Amino acid sequence: MPDAEIIRATVVQYLARHSAGDIDGIAACFSADAEVEDPIGTQRHRGTEEIRAFFVGTHELCDSMRLDLTGPIRVVGPHAAFPMTAHTRIGETTVEVDIIDVMVFDESGLIREMYAYWDFADARTS
Amino acid sequence: MPDAEIIRATVVQYLARHSAGDIDGIAACFSADAEVEDPIGTQRHRGTEEIRAFFVGTHELCDSMRLDLTGPIRVVGPHAAFPMTAHTRIGETTVEVDIIDVMVFDESGLIREMYAYWDFADARTS
Repeated sequence: MPDAEIIRATVVQYLARHSAGDIDGIAACFSADAEVEDPIGTQRHRGTEEIRAFFVGTHELCDSMRLDLTGPIRVVGPHAAFPMTAHTRIGETTVEVDIIDVMVFDESGLIREMYAYWDFADARTS
Repeated sequence: MPDAEIIRATVVQYLARHSAGDIDGIAACFSADAEVEDPIGTQRHRGTEEIRAFFVGTHELCDSMRLDLTGPIRVVGPHAAFPMTAHTRIGETTVEVDIIDVMVFDESGLIREMYAYWDFADARTS
């Protein structure tokens, strides 16, 4: 079981790498056999290559992205959940979406499963 | 698939009934075959009677409880996730814990699955 502080450090790193557009860094947060549903209920991406390709696609949709935590990272055992807001810049428009990510971690503190809770129907533009 | 507004209404009702100490009302938010892990990773409670008994035990541990949302309820398909803080009164002491609940809803808008993310190690007392 990874330590809660190791889990929190991975989450903080994961968010910072999104905000930096560091796709290789994002992919390195996941275990080789990781699974991602983002948002939950959509096609599941399995393994580092599929997950990397998914996030390449996500970042190609926008000019820049910033993921800001909006509350504490809840950690219990190998599980974490945290609230955030994604600020996505597309040309002159900023799109904001409130997201909760839920993750399961492996023994080395890498993300083994990730499920994201958000709906584009709730996005705000400015 | 239940409407997002019906899901949000069930969540608001679920929190209000906890704050009112209305155990029958809490149990009525769940489908007959619902499953609850609170916190995630602990013993799963199955069916209305087990879930009701679990919440009776939770409420017996304290003199009063208030569950306050600390951000928007994220809804996608039959899924919801939301951040909150539990304010629990035990004698002269207030214990605060930050929680994220993750739920799956049935077609009638009742909770079919619930997983709670929190650790007593992160509780604050005042």
